[in-house]
Amino acid sequence: MVAQAVEPVVPSDPYAGDPVFELHRGGKIQVTSSIHVRDADDLSKAYTPGVARVCTAIAEDPALVRRFTWKSNVVAVVTDGTAVLGLGDIGPAASLPVMEGKALLFKEFGGVDSVPIALDCTDVDEFVETVARMAPTFGGINLEDISAPRCFEIERRLKERLDIPVFHDDQHGTAVVVLAALRNALRVTGLRGTPRRIEDIRVVISGAGAAGVACARILLQAGVGDLAVVDSKGVLHEDRSDLNPVKLSLARDTNTGGLSGRLVDALAGADLFLGVSGGTVPEEAVAKMAPGAMIFALANPNPEVHPDIAHRHAAVVATGRSDFPNQINNVLAFPGIFRGALDANASRITEGMKLAAANALADLIAEPDLRPDYIIPSPFDERVAPAVAAAVSAAADTDGVARPA
Amino acid sequence: MVAQAVEPVVPSDPYAGDPVFELHRGGKIQVTSSIHVRDADDLSKAYTPGVARVCTAIAEDPALVRRFTWKSNVVAVVTDGTAVLGLGDIGPAASLPVMEGKALLFKEFGGVDSVPIALDCTDVDEFVETVARMAPTFGGINLEDISAPRCFEIERRLKERLDIPVFHDDQHGTAVVVLAALRNALRVTGLRGTPRRIEDIRVVISGAGAAGVACARILLQAGVGDLAVVDSKGVLHEDRSDLNPVKLSLARDTNTGGLSGRLVDALAGADLFLGVSGGTVPEEAVAKMAPGAMIFALANPNPEVHPDIAHRHAAVVATGRSDFPNQINNVLAFPGIFRGALDANASRITEGMKLAAANALADLIAEPDLRPDYIIPSPFDERVAPAVAAAVSAAADTDGVARPA
Repeated sequence: MVAQAVEPVVPSDPYAGDPVFELHRGGKIQVTSSIHVRDADDLSKAYTPGVARVCTAIAEDPALVRRFTWKSNVVAVVTDGTAVLGLGDIGPAASLPVMEGKALLFKEFGGVDSVPIALDCTDVDEFVETVARMAPTFGGINLEDISAPRCFEIERRLKERLDIPVFHDDQHGTAVVVLAALRNALRVTGLRGTPRRIEDIRVVISGAGAAGVACARILLQAGVGDLAVVDSKGVLHEDRSDLNPVKLSLARDTNTGGLSGRLVDALAGADLFLGVSGGTVPEEAVAKMAPGAMIFALANPNPEVHPDIAHRHAAVVATGRSDFPNQINNVLAFPGIFRGALDANASRITEGMKLAAANALADLIAEPDLRPDYIIPSPFDERVAPAVAAAVSAAADTDGVARPA
Repeated sequence: MVAQAVEPVVPSDPYAGDPVFELHRGGKIQVTSSIHVRDADDLSKAYTPGVARVCTAIAEDPALVRRFTWKSNVVAVVTDGTAVLGLGDIGPAASLPVMEGKALLFKEFGGVDSVPIALDCTDVDEFVETVARMAPTFGGINLEDISAPRCFEIERRLKERLDIPVFHDDQHGTAVVVLAALRNALRVTGLRGTPRRIEDIRVVISGAGAAGVACARILLQAGVGDLAVVDSKGVLHEDRSDLNPVKLSLARDTNTGGLSGRLVDALAGADLFLGVSGGTVPEEAVAKMAPGAMIFALANPNPEVHPDIAHRHAAVVATGRSDFPNQINNVLAFPGIFRGALDANASRITEGMKLAAANALADLIAEPDLRPDYIIPSPFDERVAPAVAAAVSAAADTDGVARPA
């Protein structure tokens, strides 16, 4: 009897053929050479002994590091993996596909080089120290997917400590695009071509995490007078004993109407509902909003109010989804914001730079094109990043944070 | 009288036109996209919502991070700027051109993506913690230009702590290439086609810093029996009271001849002089070496013994310079070593992997081509990195540190 050959057991790849996994295979970014090293002469210029002269020049005049290294164009995308998309605390390794995705978008949309850095530390002090230590390498720090309220302190301390832009995109990227969309929603819902005044509207924000807090802050900055923020326990007000310092401070600066109920109560008569929390808002509550209401339901993939329902009660509807009109997508902001900040060699990103980014984004839609289902440009509108970058760079100058190149 | 226009004062760029600085302008590496994002479908696969499935898969099976991110091909080149080239402690920013240069060479010679990280911290504990925290992002850590003896403890602790290769190139890259050159020097100086035995030679190393210590260790590992290391105070021996723990340990493992004098004394009758220290060795001392002596004078740009002088007394001469034959250049080792380690998904770089790299490098020069002025391949020999990588990867397997891809 002849022994039969045994087929080796090859484990099947359950991801083979899945278009999403295939696209991620091997990663989405790489480091490439800007120059080539073909012979001893190249090597002696790009590396020893030639490079020593460049090092010495920078040691004598530190500002030269921007001219003769990639620092002037490179941003670290830093996370600890504690609040990744809607997945929560999945840790640093599992967050890497998102950080790489962000780096991909930085390059594709803003021409900004960026490096994903997923940190294995969740203590705020350790996180701040670690990022501060690696800062000499980078021209900017984009914080990403860090849980609230830790993200607020981390950003504040890094901004204090570093002389390069520090920007938590989950907060400020969202806030900038929301403000841009709101500006155009006010134009499109105004009477006889006169935009409604932002000072006149009443806003309800569902969610007091990273995005909710930053959206509230930028809307106040932009002139909104009546704004209430709601978390899972109800409207933020000063008398609540369960608020962390960030929420307490926000309660003091908002809710001039003295509301104390739940989301459904707050929504009665409101002009803008901004959802950045997940969960579902019942149709009855939405139905009680003011005439000409605006609903921005940004939870992904399930908006707080489904657009089909929202349209029954609102004049303008926006979501976070690409398969409905008016997608509020951070990619409209962060590539241009960092492009502009790096171009200006800005030491920080000011409130003025964020407001300028929002206005530039809104202004890209000219009056004749503006419609209730077109209040915000497409991420693939090639005018976006250059317009945002130019506005941010000019605002850096105005705000006195631009430095010589 | 007509007022004359005043020319604006434009500061002249003193570096304009300098070929070395021009080559460094804007940096030598960049991050590029491996895929492009052209429409909403691309965006939804590369970023939200598609990317969430990849994150979830990695959270459930951490090994998948290698398959679906760039981790499997990316190395951090980490320094604190304390021992940059021969320039000393110039700090993190001024070290960046060298780190970028290293990243350039990793890509050009080994196809390895790497990211320069210059850390603003010189405390050993802080350095170790910082690198350990960022490790989830990377497939390997290449330590660079860190002063001795701090570099030894930093490397040891990171190796203990991390499950990815950690490699201090100033130590081990140099050691691997030196051993390769020595193997071929022994072949070329052997009688009647029989290589001299490495066990039979007496070696004197000038320099007990990062490179000196690592060269001593690899030569002992390779079989050298009689080896003395000399620092600025003289030959290392156990009775010296001024030795740090690394030097004391080395003193115990070397100098079986019980030498106690200075470099010139030790050189009398020696077969190999290895200079990794700078300084100058007087011709009288070199003249007293044994017949068939080998001189590897690696200080850059000024070898410890100028090749013209060395040739009067030695059968084989090597330097660190590209304008003399037999250049001992780390670029012969590190790209292939990391290429092989990453290909094998090695958890560490073992002694066996380093010895395999040295042997593979030496073996690239076949018997008929071997000459006293050709004992080591050119960095531009395209066989180098693939041969080193294959040998390292196989040795990882043999040593049990390779893991499934």
